Amino acid sequence: MTTALRVALAGLGTVGTGVVRLIEENRDLIARRAGRPIDIVAVSARDRRRERGVDLSAYRWADDMGAFAHDADVDVVCELVGGADGPALALARESLKAGKALVTANKALIALHGMELAEIAEASGAPLLFEAAVAGAVPVIKGLREGAAANRIERVYGILNGTCNYVLSAMEADGRDFDEVLSAAQAIGYAEADPAFDIEGTDAAHKLSILAALCFGTRLDFAHVETCGITQVRAEDIAQARALGYVIRLIGFAELDGGKLFQRVHPCLLPLAHPLARIDGATNAVVAEGNYSGRLLFQGAGAGDGPTASAVVADLVDLARGGTGHSFAMPASALEQADAAETGHRSGKAYVRFEVADKVGVLAEIAAAMRDAGVSVESLIQPAQARGETALIAIVTHEVEERCIDRALQTLTGSNSLKAAPMVMHILDA
Amino acid sequence: MTTALRVALAGLGTVGTGVVRLIEENRDLIARRAGRPIDIVAVSARDRRRERGVDLSAYRWADDMGAFAHDADVDVVCELVGGADGPALALARESLKAGKALVTANKALIALHGMELAEIAEASGAPLLFEAAVAGAVPVIKGLREGAAANRIERVYGILNGTCNYVLSAMEADGRDFDEVLSAAQAIGYAEADPAFDIEGTDAAHKLSILAALCFGTRLDFAHVETCGITQVRAEDIAQARALGYVIRLIGFAELDGGKLFQRVHPCLLPLAHPLARIDGATNAVVAEGNYSGRLLFQGAGAGDGPTASAVVADLVDLARGGTGHSFAMPASALEQADAAETGHRSGKAYVRFEVADKVGVLAEIAAAMRDAGVSVESLIQPAQARGETALIAIVTHEVEERCIDRALQTLTGSNSLKAAPMVMHILDA
Repeated sequence: MTTALRVALAGLGTVGTGVVRLIEENRDLIARRAGRPIDIVAVSARDRRRERGVDLSAYRWADDMGAFAHDADVDVVCELVGGADGPALALARESLKAGKALVTANKALIALHGMELAEIAEASGAPLLFEAAVAGAVPVIKGLREGAAANRIERVYGILNGTCNYVLSAMEADGRDFDEVLSAAQAIGYAEADPAFDIEGTDAAHKLSILAALCFGTRLDFAHVETCGITQVRAEDIAQARALGYVIRLIGFAELDGGKLFQRVHPCLLPLAHPLARIDGATNAVVAEGNYSGRLLFQGAGAGDGPTASAVVADLVDLARGGTGHSFAMPASALEQADAAETGHRSGKAYVRFEVADKVGVLAEIAAAMRDAGVSVESLIQPAQARGETALIAIVTHEVEERCIDRALQTLTGSNSLKAAPMVMHILDA
Repeated sequence: MTTALRVALAGLGTVGTGVVRLIEENRDLIARRAGRPIDIVAVSARDRRRERGVDLSAYRWADDMGAFAHDADVDVVCELVGGADGPALALARESLKAGKALVTANKALIALHGMELAEIAEASGAPLLFEAAVAGAVPVIKGLREGAAANRIERVYGILNGTCNYVLSAMEADGRDFDEVLSAAQAIGYAEADPAFDIEGTDAAHKLSILAALCFGTRLDFAHVETCGITQVRAEDIAQARALGYVIRLIGFAELDGGKLFQRVHPCLLPLAHPLARIDGATNAVVAEGNYSGRLLFQGAGAGDGPTASAVVADLVDLARGGTGHSFAMPASALEQADAAETGHRSGKAYVRFEVADKVGVLAEIAAAMRDAGVSVESLIQPAQARGETALIAIVTHEVEERCIDRALQTLTGSNSLKAAPMVMHILDA
């Protein structure tokens, strides 16, 4: 067997220790598949003394992970520190500049600095891989970059955040409200102590921007992902949606729309027959539609130490075999700079929830605003239960341009019939 | 841009012409992703004059496809002729021996001769790729070989034949019987004029044996795939299963069972919550369970010219980029020779359908045979409708060793209460 691939691990949190355990436990099998052993030669983290539940005594400890970039005994630097900037970014830049391969699970880093890093990587000839950055264990980066390489892909979407999907499917299962389910999820470790990053959609937006670049051959454009999380979704919305034949999921959706890039993370209504409608819990799933392949679906565990480690080590096996291609399927210089699409002319059905004063005439006021804006209503539910002095009205529109809905809501702005800003959720067709 | 990858196409049926159309339509995009153009330089098929709906005038025509193996202007031979032996096998052997890369969509060829071809390929250093051989457009070969490379996988299963899945889900949708649905499927081109290969499970068995070798690192063993098709499944079975909370799908299932290889293609009952239970029509889906990744699911179009061409051209893009690994993830010599597992000690629930004489005492006779063999019955349905003098009895057992069911059925063999051999379908847990 030829020389081992020598890996330096920066970061020993749950993912880092998962990688250590995986490489030890599956060592022989990995060597058979990689054609040579994969050896961890050095590790680094902030606190050397922390108890991590894995034996690190066989590996050289480095107090300064930055030194990995210039360590002659290291072939690959594995960045598992996290954070879009700071030490993770510095390490990634330095390593790639120095010609070291870089493997990372850091979606924020790639979404925000992926173009710069890919350019550095291409200049020095060092591979940059990030399978673990999207959908955990699911080999969706490879599947799209290589498996679907023959296709023009104009649409990619999916369930990209396990915490949000867990919360929404738990709300659906037992009718509890958002805050209650989130607290329960935090208690069992399915949501972070500070969950903002997940529940506000930022994490899904990072992943979506990476998928869009890969699928469309366009430059990363995280800044233009229209992002709305799940904090406004109520138990009543889920109940109304279900009554109308839909479930609610946080969907990241990207489309190349007449050469312009449309990217949105949004709670969506999915018809029950949609392949993503049955996906419960922390599972992730990505759908890409190719012009020859048709609809491809990739599904699996989106987070957790084992699944994420599985993706990190898949990248290491690729490096050990040699011949990894470009990070974004083609040289960064070949990616197109697409403008962000305008959303107003997009057409579709939508769900709109109004929180209204419980008095005569409100419904007529809303209906008139919809009519005047050219929005035709397919169904309307006014649930019996109300919250104090307010009532809820849930509307599903017929297919209509989004700008018409905006116009209707603008008409209603300031009306004292409305007790809160209306909530709009788009409907994804099957 | 560097030199083009020069491809010779052997076979111009639906897949071959699909490849021609795809390479022409997506030419620029493919070149960007592959890093160089992919050019068809020569084509060959049995009948030059047949109208194929694509313009072949730009390509050199070869009357003898065997000459591709020694053609200095060809880098890759694309075998789309079909058939496990004959011209396809001769072409594959010759091309690989001569050091030409070989891309094929031919599952029968790989299932039966894959070990020999991989050995020839390794000896000459020529790549052998067959993404299109399993699950059409779905990049499941790459996903398992590379994306899941870090994992010990001990179980892989899926819906591997689109014709069978189309027939079963159509039977389910409208209660029609097998023959009627099959005729309708043939009329619209969803089943071949001679459907034996599909409906008897052979095609799924070919694919299963390929998946097993890839996942387990074992040598291909098509000969030991226990195979039963869908010809015995009746509308009544589907109705009974549904009443008990199950659907019926043809499942290829492989497991490494204490170092022994278990491979079975069989109509199975799946609980409605199972991710494969909702898959209707000609869709294929594969589930693999890795020891770190957890359950991965890959889903998409399993057949058709466009989807199959998508997978064939994905292999060509890999070749153009360089650095394809071993066909079965590791050298053929590193694959283990696993014995076939015995099935009798396998445990699970099962569905057993009896066609019985419509007379008193039959149920008691069956129940006694089950009891004496140690099979405990979870539920039993005796549908009202009967066929002439016969009645149906459908039983679902509790979890039990398969040999116990065999024993019970042996006791009943020859009983004049039974009007036909009982039908056993195993139940796959969620």
